[in-house]
Amino acid sequence: MFDFPDLSRLVRPRNIVVVGGSQRPNTEGAFLLENLASHSKLLGEVYVVNPSMKGGGTFQCWPSLAALPPGPIDVALVIVRASLVLDVLRDCALREIPFAIVMSSGFAETGPEGKTIEAEIAALCAETGLRVYGPNCPGLTNMRDTIGMTFSTAFAADAANVGPIGLVTQGGGAGRSVIQGFANGPGAGLWFSGGNELDLGAPDFIAHLAMDPTIEVIAVVLEGVKHGKRLIAALELARANGKPVVTLKVGRSEYGVRAAQSHTGSIAGAAEINKAVFRQFGVIEVDDLDELVAVTRLLAARRRPASASLAILTFSGGAAAMAADHTGMQGLQLAELTSQTLAHLKAVLPGFAAIHNPVDVTSEAVKSIDALVSCLCAVAADPHVGAVLVPVPADYGEATERIAQAIVDAAANAASPIIPVWMSRRQGAGFDLLERHGLAPFTSLSKAVAAIRKTVPRAALPAAVQTRAVGAEAPRHAAGLTDIACTACNEATAKQMLREADIPVPAGILAGSADEAAEIAAGLGFPVAMKVASAQILHKTEVDGVRLGIDSQEQVAAAYAGILERVGALRPDARIDGVLVEKMFHDGGREMLVGIHTDEAFGRVMTVGLGGIFVELMKDVSHRVLPIRKADALEMIGELRYGAYLGEFRGHAPADVEALADLLGKISEFAMKHPEIREAEFNPVWVGPTGEGAFALDALILSAPAEGAVPTSV
Amino acid sequence: MFDFPDLSRLVRPRNIVVVGGSQRPNTEGAFLLENLASHSKLLGEVYVVNPSMKGGGTFQCWPSLAALPPGPIDVALVIVRASLVLDVLRDCALREIPFAIVMSSGFAETGPEGKTIEAEIAALCAETGLRVYGPNCPGLTNMRDTIGMTFSTAFAADAANVGPIGLVTQGGGAGRSVIQGFANGPGAGLWFSGGNELDLGAPDFIAHLAMDPTIEVIAVVLEGVKHGKRLIAALELARANGKPVVTLKVGRSEYGVRAAQSHTGSIAGAAEINKAVFRQFGVIEVDDLDELVAVTRLLAARRRPASASLAILTFSGGAAAMAADHTGMQGLQLAELTSQTLAHLKAVLPGFAAIHNPVDVTSEAVKSIDALVSCLCAVAADPHVGAVLVPVPADYGEATERIAQAIVDAAANAASPIIPVWMSRRQGAGFDLLERHGLAPFTSLSKAVAAIRKTVPRAALPAAVQTRAVGAEAPRHAAGLTDIACTACNEATAKQMLREADIPVPAGILAGSADEAAEIAAGLGFPVAMKVASAQILHKTEVDGVRLGIDSQEQVAAAYAGILERVGALRPDARIDGVLVEKMFHDGGREMLVGIHTDEAFGRVMTVGLGGIFVELMKDVSHRVLPIRKADALEMIGELRYGAYLGEFRGHAPADVEALADLLGKISEFAMKHPEIREAEFNPVWVGPTGEGAFALDALILSAPAEGAVPTSV
Repeated sequence: MFDFPDLSRLVRPRNIVVVGGSQRPNTEGAFLLENLASHSKLLGEVYVVNPSMKGGGTFQCWPSLAALPPGPIDVALVIVRASLVLDVLRDCALREIPFAIVMSSGFAETGPEGKTIEAEIAALCAETGLRVYGPNCPGLTNMRDTIGMTFSTAFAADAANVGPIGLVTQGGGAGRSVIQGFANGPGAGLWFSGGNELDLGAPDFIAHLAMDPTIEVIAVVLEGVKHGKRLIAALELARANGKPVVTLKVGRSEYGVRAAQSHTGSIAGAAEINKAVFRQFGVIEVDDLDELVAVTRLLAARRRPASASLAILTFSGGAAAMAADHTGMQGLQLAELTSQTLAHLKAVLPGFAAIHNPVDVTSEAVKSIDALVSCLCAVAADPHVGAVLVPVPADYGEATERIAQAIVDAAANAASPIIPVWMSRRQGAGFDLLERHGLAPFTSLSKAVAAIRKTVPRAALPAAVQTRAVGAEAPRHAAGLTDIACTACNEATAKQMLREADIPVPAGILAGSADEAAEIAAGLGFPVAMKVASAQILHKTEVDGVRLGIDSQEQVAAAYAGILERVGALRPDARIDGVLVEKMFHDGGREMLVGIHTDEAFGRVMTVGLGGIFVELMKDVSHRVLPIRKADALEMIGELRYGAYLGEFRGHAPADVEALADLLGKISEFAMKHPEIREAEFNPVWVGPTGEGAFALDALILSAPAEGAVPTSV
Repeated sequence: MFDFPDLSRLVRPRNIVVVGGSQRPNTEGAFLLENLASHSKLLGEVYVVNPSMKGGGTFQCWPSLAALPPGPIDVALVIVRASLVLDVLRDCALREIPFAIVMSSGFAETGPEGKTIEAEIAALCAETGLRVYGPNCPGLTNMRDTIGMTFSTAFAADAANVGPIGLVTQGGGAGRSVIQGFANGPGAGLWFSGGNELDLGAPDFIAHLAMDPTIEVIAVVLEGVKHGKRLIAALELARANGKPVVTLKVGRSEYGVRAAQSHTGSIAGAAEINKAVFRQFGVIEVDDLDELVAVTRLLAARRRPASASLAILTFSGGAAAMAADHTGMQGLQLAELTSQTLAHLKAVLPGFAAIHNPVDVTSEAVKSIDALVSCLCAVAADPHVGAVLVPVPADYGEATERIAQAIVDAAANAASPIIPVWMSRRQGAGFDLLERHGLAPFTSLSKAVAAIRKTVPRAALPAAVQTRAVGAEAPRHAAGLTDIACTACNEATAKQMLREADIPVPAGILAGSADEAAEIAAGLGFPVAMKVASAQILHKTEVDGVRLGIDSQEQVAAAYAGILERVGALRPDARIDGVLVEKMFHDGGREMLVGIHTDEAFGRVMTVGLGGIFVELMKDVSHRVLPIRKADALEMIGELRYGAYLGEFRGHAPADVEALADLLGKISEFAMKHPEIREAEFNPVWVGPTGEGAFALDALILSAPAEGAVPTSV
């Protein structure tokens, strides 16, 4: 555990000295003095130090720090040229001032010279115990106590909206953006904007906020992580005190890392390790500044859903469908409304309204505000509902204003949070009404659902979502067997069809007896594979109908008998046409899967993917509607997530991707010539090292009944 | 190829009949008549049919369709109760009216009865050749020719902003939202909102727009896909005519599928097949309605970047870093500015500005509007720049208004698009200025960069991004060797350390000679593994120092000699301590990888992931900062993308995840007792079926030098 410095004298100082406060208009110094003189509730004296004895404004001017009257000074606000800062800080240390806020720029962010000054200041701190905040920062903004140790001209406005949020940023622009995002809702109480964080940094500020009883939520924009272990300790402190920490980390791509480095001179750290640390220590990581604002607002306003089950209530079927879609895509649930809620909705709404979640009250119903409010309240009070999402698709002027009023009225009394989404770029009076009442309408469904998801307590998320990243859902639909009665042929026949279509398959012959099989195997050369041939058996391994790696004629004979016996026992109904004996390929090839199935909407679709162990595990596949050509096939292969499997890999030479693409093109041609084929599976397709080709080792072809009762798919 | 119907008489009719137009105020019928009477440029007659001969407004009323005067009628607008629609349509067919727009609701969207009526109408269409648009829709909005065949009260406003966009939606709410999004920019020329699409549907409308010379971009909201093959043909037509199609598809999650179905009675289709079709036929698929608007606007305003290389220009270092971050995360590039551009920026900007992309002109520079405009124009004119992103982090009142004016001025003459991002929720006068000038500021960096990426021509994207989904980037950092000089011990010593820490390793003994090895092997039982033991050899396979699956004492002796010979030849410098002989496990276990490395920011981090073939291919790993306990270990395992590998799988029993978690916990304890360990790799860790445990089959441990020059990491 780390000892964090006690920052109470820094945050809420009694006596303050300003070094470099200027009275030249429109300078940062002047703004700083104005904030102290006119907009702060000072607890003690403000001294201004200026050798020329000018510029103190309403405050008395002194020639030097040494010349100040005796007595404790808590903070020095330093706003002189970079080259003078070190001397000023030396004087501060001599005068036993514990904290200095250095707002001046011109340090590490400008290059090596600035870095040198920072190193000297750091040495001074280590030696004297002086703690420095900054440099290169707009100051420390204490709204809660109305002490504006900042040159920002917005301080007076900031201090008018005090709330339970503690904000930590490095740069000023991002922080200003966030503060503006808190308008009309719970505001910030303290904003630390530590610039280059030469000495005091984000961990110290987070720890302070974690201990501060007026702060409930901590929002952080991190450009770099200088002291990872200290950061972890601060995060643990926040967690122990039950305060959520919402963090935007810059530097998740190389460009971001470099830009953040040159901005604040700090190191971004490995993106994935940062992410793991956030997860480990309970931080809510967000993806963008607007999301930081949105998530922090929901938490600070105590509008966090109690569960991962949302209700959607709107007056547009399309908006309902879209909102439901995003809910599912983000791994959240649609609440099942209780019979009580449904009864209420049924009683209040017209017959053609959709009362099951997503609830579409229809545009008819919004003509009565009372009805709308009562529906919103009923849904929000449903014990299965964690929050109510209310998408407003467009601005319909007065009508939408009435809807907004209903949302405002309902939200005031609702049992769970009501969260409006204003989906139109036209933000009319209805939007303003929601905004004024602190409901902070989202302006995008995807952003709304993503933000809500971040505020759901992790334990309340569905199990699959708790640990897994969103959006990684495996495709729902691999080639499944068609639901139309189709006929298959046995593998030997299927292979013969392929051979005639110039699609490479292994050399192989159908054997009718054990002797014949042994003879065929000898002719092909060992090792061979043996597989039961039957039009009634679609999955040969399931009936123990396959033997691989057979090395001798004796083994062939045994395998033949074994296959007949086992298959006969397991599938006495199936007509067995013999056993297919095939030459085996060496195991230096890659296994791929190729399939065709008939999609309800688009007709026949080809699928290619990684085969073998990968099929069930990863479902790494790509699709194209038939017909395709070789160029399409190459694109399909390029789309595979783990296409690297076909590259140079663990000592394997690159796979013969050209041959695979040729094979796909030929299979497409073949299928186009046979419109009756509804489904086919070639699994595995063996793809050898470059130059060795690609072969369909197995083939299953299902055709629509000949009588034409089923429309062919092309 | 499909024959699409010629919709020109539907879209731009001369004579129109309205069936059911009412004059009761505030009814849809009244609004429709108002749109025709007051806001349309009619090309022919409008007849109103109403048996009671009331309600025609300015138009003449007729008792029935049969009673109408002779002469061609192009379109019937039908707005009567659902139960009357079939009869009206029969009369339309008799009167040889080619098209009917049915706005009434109460059809498939309400249940089986409505579906029955739809089926009867469909049969009528098939029989008579009548083509029906709708039902359950707000009509057809022709802004281009100012013909308002819709009951929307917004028609007059819509028709005031005509542009090259063709819009196709099903529901009215989503379409209204999109139309509102086109304000102050290129508007829509035609909006098809086909409701239930009982007969005419999205493919017909897209095909019409593809052929219409006044349309340049086609925006589509699809809830369902009824006729996939027709849709494909329409998309091909659009592509052949060079018109981008931007599509939002509802139904990407189960919830969305169900909600869209109940809204429009249409089938959503398999999400992944839809996605594949869009990709195959060149559709730009977007994720949300706001993105549909944004992408369509960029295309319609010809503000599509020419390349995937962005410039970022802002006055906030934080905003620059964030924008750069999103650029990288979306797989776009930061343009390298030419020396000419850099020289210009250097001449115009203060010395402390960052002139390399991302350009931070600093808040100082924005005081001169001329300078800002000149910088923007210079960057936009740079031949390496495809578009200029201008993030405005916060609203600073007048100052931001000046910046907005500079953006407007620069955009008017810029060689490449200048795209502002207004990052604050406070949208002041500056925002309004940008909006009024059609620059449609984004309100979120992530959304802005995502939209820009969608508009970049696919061929202009970096190769890796062309085919692969965004966000699937493999972690940059697996356990790599530390850059601090560390000492290793040989594997036998490492295993002994593990054994003492109660971490399961295979039974094994270090052999000093071939005979000794054979004896050890016999004692352990075959098969055994043999591995060179040397503190200098970190990667034993690379020097051919490993033999697996050794089955007999003779093989042991040969392997011993072979290892010494090969390793001696390849690494004559290495001191060889002997050969480790170990009992092998059966191959029914899973291979996992466990590692520890020292992170610059956070100290020692544990990594667990899928081993074997998966390590290089998928880098499926999760991380935790040390120390961890078993519960953390279980969480780590749960976070693996393909954790299913440890489940029941291809006939394997589930793996012993408990034992793996125990092992991870013990490795953490071990590492905490040895702060000098900077890096360790246990690869593979063998995880047997449940009950058989988990064992570190290999162990590499690197420790910091003893002299303490290097700080230990805990």
